Amino acid sequence: MTVADVQFLAIEGSVSAPAGFRAAGVSCGIKKSKGLDLALIASDAPASAAAVFTTNKAQAAPVLVSKERLRASGGRGQVIVINSGCANACTGPDGHRTAEVMADAAARSAGAPSSSALVASTGVIGVALDRQLVSDGIAAAWRELSRDGGPSAARAIMTTDPFPKEAAVEVTTPAGTFRVGGIAKGSGMIEPLMATMLAVVTTDAAVEPVLLQRALSAVTDVTFNAITVDGECSTNDCVFALANGASGVTLGERDFPLLVQALTRVCEPLAVGIVRGGEGATKLVTIEVSGGRTDAEAKQAARAVANSPLVKTAIHGADPNWGRLVAVMGRAGVAFDLERARVRIGEVELFAGGRPYDERAPQASDHLTGTDVRLRLDLGAGGSGTARMWTCDLSADYVKINAEYRT
Amino acid sequence: MTVADVQFLAIEGSVSAPAGFRAAGVSCGIKKSKGLDLALIASDAPASAAAVFTTNKAQAAPVLVSKERLRASGGRGQVIVINSGCANACTGPDGHRTAEVMADAAARSAGAPSSSALVASTGVIGVALDRQLVSDGIAAAWRELSRDGGPSAARAIMTTDPFPKEAAVEVTTPAGTFRVGGIAKGSGMIEPLMATMLAVVTTDAAVEPVLLQRALSAVTDVTFNAITVDGECSTNDCVFALANGASGVTLGERDFPLLVQALTRVCEPLAVGIVRGGEGATKLVTIEVSGGRTDAEAKQAARAVANSPLVKTAIHGADPNWGRLVAVMGRAGVAFDLERARVRIGEVELFAGGRPYDERAPQASDHLTGTDVRLRLDLGAGGSGTARMWTCDLSADYVKINAEYRT
Repeated sequence: MTVADVQFLAIEGSVSAPAGFRAAGVSCGIKKSKGLDLALIASDAPASAAAVFTTNKAQAAPVLVSKERLRASGGRGQVIVINSGCANACTGPDGHRTAEVMADAAARSAGAPSSSALVASTGVIGVALDRQLVSDGIAAAWRELSRDGGPSAARAIMTTDPFPKEAAVEVTTPAGTFRVGGIAKGSGMIEPLMATMLAVVTTDAAVEPVLLQRALSAVTDVTFNAITVDGECSTNDCVFALANGASGVTLGERDFPLLVQALTRVCEPLAVGIVRGGEGATKLVTIEVSGGRTDAEAKQAARAVANSPLVKTAIHGADPNWGRLVAVMGRAGVAFDLERARVRIGEVELFAGGRPYDERAPQASDHLTGTDVRLRLDLGAGGSGTARMWTCDLSADYVKINAEYRT
Repeated sequence: MTVADVQFLAIEGSVSAPAGFRAAGVSCGIKKSKGLDLALIASDAPASAAAVFTTNKAQAAPVLVSKERLRASGGRGQVIVINSGCANACTGPDGHRTAEVMADAAARSAGAPSSSALVASTGVIGVALDRQLVSDGIAAAWRELSRDGGPSAARAIMTTDPFPKEAAVEVTTPAGTFRVGGIAKGSGMIEPLMATMLAVVTTDAAVEPVLLQRALSAVTDVTFNAITVDGECSTNDCVFALANGASGVTLGERDFPLLVQALTRVCEPLAVGIVRGGEGATKLVTIEVSGGRTDAEAKQAARAVANSPLVKTAIHGADPNWGRLVAVMGRAGVAFDLERARVRIGEVELFAGGRPYDERAPQASDHLTGTDVRLRLDLGAGGSGTARMWTCDLSADYVKINAEYRT
């Protein structure tokens, strides 16, 4: 099947939209607010599993345990358990054991081998996660599992995210119809400590584990790894995928582009949702870089712009400050030619051919007053390298959220 | 001479404290505020000259012209002219010519060859610098040059710096006494556009150009290149040094450690002053990293911590948030061992041996409420690599200063 033969339809729901998946979110008492704090996502039958983990060298216990389980199972999985309110990070051997107990309890509920459970946590670093609360929570969540449980699961993994992130797509192919669904949480702070990006993607297509892993890595690269709120990388970041084959549609090696496209249709809105819900964010900023010597250099420049506090504050203030953009492109550590570089804000070109067009600043400022901002930057390095990243503006609220003393 | 034979005495004054140097700061009309906006620093006799320039690939015209002059003169110089209020960056061939005219006018005043003038600018990017204003300003400044002109010069290079940065030291050696003096400006924004770090260091020791350049580069590395306010690198950054030999003391190859130490005594307080006067800064943060595989890795980790918005906001809020420090050390891209890593805030160890000591958080918070904060971080990588950097906290005022629309 080629992508051209295929129709993509955005549908309601998320992780439990694909056939053979159920989900639940419960409150088990980790969050003092009594909010939902434990999510369970389960496939009715064993599934292929894949994951992408944080590159932070200070890895939380659930990250280490999920890696171990995924290795032990050879890329098979059936159940994912996630708690919010406690990151179970920097918690020593005891914390590692707690993550194992958590995964074991989830696997036992599903009647599945212990290696088929994946586990993730998000919340305060350095605080012990209560095993009894989690075990009771898993039992409760198991009883609540349902085809309608996606929204609860999406809420149960939130920390101070302003809204839940859910997406799903139905893919109609000559070989049949399958679905992909996903949930994510973003960079909100809990009692303000390092937050975490988590996502779970499910599909009822049948996909071999190796292919699923390859597709998930490729899609993560251009979605979850192409966003930034503040340039920080958590100890707990995870993206999980399960593919259970319940739709009857099998995607093989030749369907790789289709699989990537289908996963992207779910992961991209989730990733963009994380940025929209970024701490103190008032604007979503899409950064498109062209003219890089390579795609990697274009991405490096896009990332430098996306994390520049001067750019992010200028956008917050609707200031069409092309000078800051040029300065960041110049310091990004990639090939750059000032005479050939170009800066566009919205549809307005403000710098090209080595000279500014300041008289157009008012139109660019109009664009920046909106909640969706587009920056198009050409490095002028003569190559065909391109990249896209999403970020948000930097507001005084970001500082307030993160400067308050945790109590 | 070895450093042990030598006495260092901090003295009043700055660039005109060493013998045979005069300075002035005047208002020539570039700043609409009518504030001082043009500085001249001149040696009575030809001097050795050295410089360190921004690594930004979008280099302003004065940076390019100063590089050309320094190359043409073979490291000789006699006069430095600096304007504030306009960066003369991204101004095309016209701006390049303006920087040349500016250097030529300064050299002509001094009756010196055109290659012996260095030029720098700071202020708004992309706006033409008025040649007539600058030429008239140079003539006026030349008439005002005096041994007491250091403070005026220090003020004339400021943009929105909250205070001028001056330092000087008298060095008594068995071979005689010499002085080093310097001025600097930091990261304040003018009509808010990319600001610039500029510094001028003078000494009445006699130093060959090659040795002066080597010493200036070494000292810049551990002073001006060891500070960060917001991780941004300007199009206009310059550090200049002049050595005129008027003291009668000659420093040769064997005196390199002494030369480095003498320059450091001036450059370190100037660099720290830039951070203290950083945009919205309320605290000076000294970050000392140990246990790196190499010094370079330790510096990379120190820089990551110094630029982390989560760390900087936590310090602003006096939150002893060791979790954020561990997380940044883990993502810094250097060797790191969580089990052997250590985090100290002030004198309080909050994380060691893989476990937190949260019960000590109140004492650490006390330390953070002060205006001078010290973080000591051990990467646990088993090496002897160390580094020190200075940064400031991130406040809501930083956002306000940089989000206002330039008018």
